[in-house]
Amino acid sequence: MTRILGIDPGSRWTGYGIVDVGHGQQRHVASGRIAAGDGEIPQRLVAIDTQLSALVREYAPEEVAFEEVFVSRNVRSALVLGQARGVALCVVARARLPIAEYAASQVKMALTGSGRAEKEQVQHMVRILLGLNNRLAADAADALAVALTHAQVRSTHLRAGVPFPRSWRRR
Amino acid sequence: MTRILGIDPGSRWTGYGIVDVGHGQQRHVASGRIAAGDGEIPQRLVAIDTQLSALVREYAPEEVAFEEVFVSRNVRSALVLGQARGVALCVVARARLPIAEYAASQVKMALTGSGRAEKEQVQHMVRILLGLNNRLAADAADALAVALTHAQVRSTHLRAGVPFPRSWRRR
Repeated sequence: MTRILGIDPGSRWTGYGIVDVGHGQQRHVASGRIAAGDGEIPQRLVAIDTQLSALVREYAPEEVAFEEVFVSRNVRSALVLGQARGVALCVVARARLPIAEYAASQVKMALTGSGRAEKEQVQHMVRILLGLNNRLAADAADALAVALTHAQVRSTHLRAGVPFPRSWRRR
Repeated sequence: MTRILGIDPGSRWTGYGIVDVGHGQQRHVASGRIAAGDGEIPQRLVAIDTQLSALVREYAPEEVAFEEVFVSRNVRSALVLGQARGVALCVVARARLPIAEYAASQVKMALTGSGRAEKEQVQHMVRILLGLNNRLAADAADALAVALTHAQVRSTHLRAGVPFPRSWRRR
């Protein structure tokens, strides 16, 4: 089994989802969201740094998947989101974990078969694939979705005998 | 004397400038730029994290000044710059240092008396104010400029009996 951490960074809430995958199986390990608080930006960044570092230590994931940022937002929000995302990327890169990135359309395609699926369909598939009965917080569901997308892509690549495809490190 | 660290973050080069100020004097302590390398973004972020943390340990600044980001750039570059900036903010906030931010026009105004001065005029004033004869790298000069701007603003506020003005934490 391989442990994958999916991350959906944000300046207030950072979703995380941890799954174990392998031998055609996928198991939910943990998911939730890190509260960065509603204080000033530097303090929020430290909260992400501290709490995400603790999650990495506690669960020891082997690979990490991020959703690519949807860049048609405005410049100011891209900057604020970028600051949170930079800290999250730094935490996992400092732990020397390989990082994969997937566009939102890739996540939708991987989980529902359509690149234009609604968010609810994606969350529904996350619950089915992981056998979860409870409703998930949106941030946690998004993070699990990108972790499961990575699980699918890596499995295809492993079957093709390409353990670390170049695209895993795309950003 | 109070030691101020000015930072001009970027995804490839992060300028830094350290000055000691007080009693109407200002002294250049160190300046230069951190090379984040031209590798993948997560590795560059780790390089900023490591090297900026080392500078903070070595020089023990008491206050930190950032230039506000010029946000009329495109969304993609705002995101990339935000990632580097987030890591730099996180490093100094982790060290519990107070952070001030200044718009580019404030820096120009503080150093040259005009909010629309050319970059060269600002750099010229940095050299004169700090008694530096050598040419400075642009990133280092920008970082020293924002440190000197903070020195000017804090001195005015201290004279007015307001040691930690609200605006210091604006961002």
